[in-house]
Amino acid sequence: MDIKDVVLNIAKKAKESSYYIAKLSTLDKNNLLINMAEEIEANIDYIQEENKKDLEYAKEKSFSNAFIDRLLLNENRIRSMAQGIREIAQLPDPVGEYIWTKKRPNGLQISKVRTPLGVIAVIYESRPNVTADAASLCLKSGNTIILRGGKEAINSNCAIADILQKSLRKFNLPAEIVSIIKDTNRQAITALVKLDQYIDVIIPRGGENLINAVRQDAIIPVVFHAKGNCHLYIDKEADIEMAHKITINAKVQRPGVCNAIETLLVHKSIAKKILPDLIKKLKELNVEIRGCQKTKNIVNNIKEASEKDWEEEYLSLILAVKVVENMEEAICHIRKYGSLHSEGIVTNSIFRINKFTQEVDASAIFVNSSTRFNDGNQFGLGAEIGISTQKLHVRGPMGLEDLTSTKYIVLGNGQIRE
Amino acid sequence: MDIKDVVLNIAKKAKESSYYIAKLSTLDKNNLLINMAEEIEANIDYIQEENKKDLEYAKEKSFSNAFIDRLLLNENRIRSMAQGIREIAQLPDPVGEYIWTKKRPNGLQISKVRTPLGVIAVIYESRPNVTADAASLCLKSGNTIILRGGKEAINSNCAIADILQKSLRKFNLPAEIVSIIKDTNRQAITALVKLDQYIDVIIPRGGENLINAVRQDAIIPVVFHAKGNCHLYIDKEADIEMAHKITINAKVQRPGVCNAIETLLVHKSIAKKILPDLIKKLKELNVEIRGCQKTKNIVNNIKEASEKDWEEEYLSLILAVKVVENMEEAICHIRKYGSLHSEGIVTNSIFRINKFTQEVDASAIFVNSSTRFNDGNQFGLGAEIGISTQKLHVRGPMGLEDLTSTKYIVLGNGQIRE
Repeated sequence: MDIKDVVLNIAKKAKESSYYIAKLSTLDKNNLLINMAEEIEANIDYIQEENKKDLEYAKEKSFSNAFIDRLLLNENRIRSMAQGIREIAQLPDPVGEYIWTKKRPNGLQISKVRTPLGVIAVIYESRPNVTADAASLCLKSGNTIILRGGKEAINSNCAIADILQKSLRKFNLPAEIVSIIKDTNRQAITALVKLDQYIDVIIPRGGENLINAVRQDAIIPVVFHAKGNCHLYIDKEADIEMAHKITINAKVQRPGVCNAIETLLVHKSIAKKILPDLIKKLKELNVEIRGCQKTKNIVNNIKEASEKDWEEEYLSLILAVKVVENMEEAICHIRKYGSLHSEGIVTNSIFRINKFTQEVDASAIFVNSSTRFNDGNQFGLGAEIGISTQKLHVRGPMGLEDLTSTKYIVLGNGQIRE
Repeated sequence: MDIKDVVLNIAKKAKESSYYIAKLSTLDKNNLLINMAEEIEANIDYIQEENKKDLEYAKEKSFSNAFIDRLLLNENRIRSMAQGIREIAQLPDPVGEYIWTKKRPNGLQISKVRTPLGVIAVIYESRPNVTADAASLCLKSGNTIILRGGKEAINSNCAIADILQKSLRKFNLPAEIVSIIKDTNRQAITALVKLDQYIDVIIPRGGENLINAVRQDAIIPVVFHAKGNCHLYIDKEADIEMAHKITINAKVQRPGVCNAIETLLVHKSIAKKILPDLIKKLKELNVEIRGCQKTKNIVNNIKEASEKDWEEEYLSLILAVKVVENMEEAICHIRKYGSLHSEGIVTNSIFRINKFTQEVDASAIFVNSSTRFNDGNQFGLGAEIGISTQKLHVRGPMGLEDLTSTKYIVLGNGQIRE
């Protein structure tokens, strides 16, 4: 069968099965999720066997050790995958929530109610635990999911999807509530993102190339989670010790994630006081510094930052440093190079806190705290499917509520429009 | 200059000017809007002169009288356009609203705050009053607007935009907060919808062709307002008199709009009791009936409905009628042919109210009331920029709140992530 027909077929069945999951009670969804967690733990050997195939392929292809580590599913990781599903079962069900109800002068009672989105296609790369995470978030919010993972984890992904489908069948539900596209050809994605009759939302998770390709081709609405080129601005009225602590945490605690900082902006009148010590500490923590000319004038032996450094998301132990004339320059720099993800300021000035939080546009602005807190669990929103850097529908951590739409339910007793 | 460069230039300037409108206080925005209304009233002659050019072109081209009427701006209509702006000035400002604030265990104070979207491009057809309506809604919600109206109203649209820009200059604001693309070539749209670096959202308002073209080409998120193929289902437990009244209102009161019904679904056990009288009344009101075989068996002299009739949005005095075996068949019919816009049910059964409102997916479900109420003003939400039939971001009437995004503002006193 042609790849387009395969994908079309999957999408059609996903749509049909979406009516079943949409009307399931919270209790039934929770029981299903708990069973899925149990089934995953009961099949640790099977998952590991299938995972081994992916690991062997990765070794054959001489992928990096870091990459291979991301692929690996050992017993601990599989158990924590199951634990993640149990935690999602415990989160409140967003579906059916009455956001508000009001009575109109003509007696109509209008309510805005949360509903599932319908069919969500998640396109992702590498880590196979996304299969279980994304599926359980979509199920809990009453949605059908179409999974399309990367080639490198195909055996692990299929094994996990298999197990989830087994649970669905056990509960007399269509297995297609969790669908997986086994064809890892790019054409499958191109076909998928055009099927707006059957799929309601596309969520791409992965590198910029993947996200851009999806945005180019899609006619279905996309919620994307793009890169984080995040900044920390140290104001002239900053607490020096706090600025040290936050800079180091935001850069070093986990440099490979999107909410770590890539560029430090420092007000010129505090630069001489803060930079020598701070850069010394960062270097001791193996951070490579790339500074502007003014930074180089203050601290010796620093590589010069080029235009490319302001643009780059290093995702590693490199930090660009720029001394700015004033906060306006910092804001302009963030507007030019920022990716609307996480932006921080250290200052004791209430005037500049107000200006910075109002004028800097990003999913989250951190005042006197680390950008590393931009995360669903840290915000108390529960598990997330990603951090949205777009402005429509959801911005920042995307949790269960954001996997829903709404509808108006209007109750009358014969009202007509005059 | 190449059309692509013209559009790029407009988009860049719109982005730059968006920072000015975003930080304007509510009071300043309201004063600006009130001044715009005054300027429009002070320039009635100028608007009419320019409108005359469009009317002459339309007559030359022998456009229909209905079309020419939609183009016409007489003194009354211009005054009510100004009045519309004043009403938007009176609506609450969504920008800066704290949706919620919470304290986390580590002392972080996290707030979710409404922000402008940034730059909104509105692509529309015919009616020139959209120029003023859309611009004032975008301004009030702190956004810059790029207007791209149809060729037929180009002179009227430019005149209105001119006047709004005059107000902006008077308030020492960049005129580009209201930008207009004067080139009516389709290529301008194709270029516009790719400029994701400068434009945050595209709102197409118009026919299916326009909307589909935008969705095909856009890489910027689109909020679309598509057609309404709306249904009314008369249940076996319906109040007969109420069913009559609502059917007639939903079809006849204003047949040319998206929330009017196109198909009536009637439960078989009430069909004989209700259809003869109801169809007689509808015919007296000049409604053409197209019925299924069962309808034809009950009432004589009815044209037979074809598959195409279930799919069509008539936007005129035609009603398709289908007798269904039970509510499940009605729900399946709506799932197959509905456009997720407005769906109605007449019944006294609380069981079927629950089932219908839960299982039918649409922007609004009307129980024992007319679908014609699907409207921002009728819902008490104020003026709207359209009725969204998509599931992301906003569904149903799109008002001021829906023209905003959010950001998290996180206040700490040195918190770092462990």
